[in-house]
Amino acid sequence: MELDVLWIQAELDAVDLRGRLAIVIDVLRASTSIVTALEAGARAVLPAASHEEARSAARRLGRESVLLCGERERVKIPGYDLGNSPREYTHSRVAGRTLVYCTTNGTPAVRRCGRAEAVWLGAFRNLTAVAAAAGRVDSSPVIVCAGRAGRVAVDDVLCAGHLVERLRVPDPSVPLSDGARAALRLARSVGPPSADFLAQTAGGRALADLGLSADVEFSAAVGVSEVIPVLDGDMLVRKRSGPGGTGADGC
Amino acid sequence: MELDVLWIQAELDAVDLRGRLAIVIDVLRASTSIVTALEAGARAVLPAASHEEARSAARRLGRESVLLCGERERVKIPGYDLGNSPREYTHSRVAGRTLVYCTTNGTPAVRRCGRAEAVWLGAFRNLTAVAAAAGRVDSSPVIVCAGRAGRVAVDDVLCAGHLVERLRVPDPSVPLSDGARAALRLARSVGPPSADFLAQTAGGRALADLGLSADVEFSAAVGVSEVIPVLDGDMLVRKRSGPGGTGADGC
Repeated sequence: MELDVLWIQAELDAVDLRGRLAIVIDVLRASTSIVTALEAGARAVLPAASHEEARSAARRLGRESVLLCGERERVKIPGYDLGNSPREYTHSRVAGRTLVYCTTNGTPAVRRCGRAEAVWLGAFRNLTAVAAAAGRVDSSPVIVCAGRAGRVAVDDVLCAGHLVERLRVPDPSVPLSDGARAALRLARSVGPPSADFLAQTAGGRALADLGLSADVEFSAAVGVSEVIPVLDGDMLVRKRSGPGGTGADGC
Repeated sequence: MELDVLWIQAELDAVDLRGRLAIVIDVLRASTSIVTALEAGARAVLPAASHEEARSAARRLGRESVLLCGERERVKIPGYDLGNSPREYTHSRVAGRTLVYCTTNGTPAVRRCGRAEAVWLGAFRNLTAVAAAAGRVDSSPVIVCAGRAGRVAVDDVLCAGHLVERLRVPDPSVPLSDGARAALRLARSVGPPSADFLAQTAGGRALADLGLSADVEFSAAVGVSEVIPVLDGDMLVRKRSGPGGTGADGC
């Protein structure tokens, strides 16, 4: 199987994920924020495909027993408990809580990967952990860049390219799809990810306009978290450490 | 306006083309073949969005008065006159004829650009002419990579990146979208386009499997044609030379 990178989630319509590990990347900001939430002790995160679905899930689970989280056009939604800034996801706010999470790009992308054998979330912050764990899985993963409102998001592809670079280390002859080769070229061209580069992307500029440049800087830190969110049923939970495997239980 | 590159035609759903010049690229092989057909003297090419539409257009125009052209899964369709190999489009076959043309990726992409102010076709073979003519247009173009069966096609993006490189020469400060910047990085990373690089892409490998490596070599030649196909009503015709403008009449 080729190591594959989808530059944008619309490519999912053309890819058979059955039997594959899908790694969904939305650097600015859903995957960064969900990594941070689980690191801060959140029990589980339900990724919603739409705000209607998020509100419905919150009612079903009991509105008081969950935190309703996410954004529309980058800002927190009236009636929601938290927005999509990773810096909101502190221990005091989320430890032990179940989150219902809905964003424009990242959480729908997770839901579109439902046919995959396993779904993980990747970001710069957990890049080292994801690369190490994916390297212990038998088949090459499909890396899915969420994109931004239907467009390619270079920050996502840069992260994917660095993941490809790391996954190739043990075996540089691993076959790469066109998308993976192009992402690898991008990563090598840009070099180590930096807050400066992310700040120049369309997503980075939009966050700066909202006074959220600190989110960009937070999202650019590489390998500072060991947390890999994995889909277990309809919930993202923290992947247990183990010798290999793709699932929440480390099997 | 940013100089924009869509890595895949699915991004068209998120882009407002009104008032813009769209340049559609499908290197392997529709845009290469249509450039070649018009160069060989074809009168006009009707790009069809589907084979049903192609057959219907052929009936409407008179089946005997047109050439029905195109492919499904890279091979000529039973009942069609010509396939999608640019080498089929010789003067003796197409001069003075109207072609109804349908392919999997390229001709649907042209049709999806219908709201644009002008639609041109680009390929390596007419890259120099397209860059020169687009440089005389007031606003920055939107370059649309057709892709391949719903996936990013690196050959298209490489061509787009080289077009961005040339369009920036007179004014390196022209603003670039994320997609344009990534395409430019790809072009600089790969360097001058070559048949060897195209042969390694998914599209190039699929053509080699069909014994059509000569099509790949043909498509890799840069700047050998002055022909720019432009959409005039529902037909692609040869852009007239002129001091500027986006249309078939050079205005």
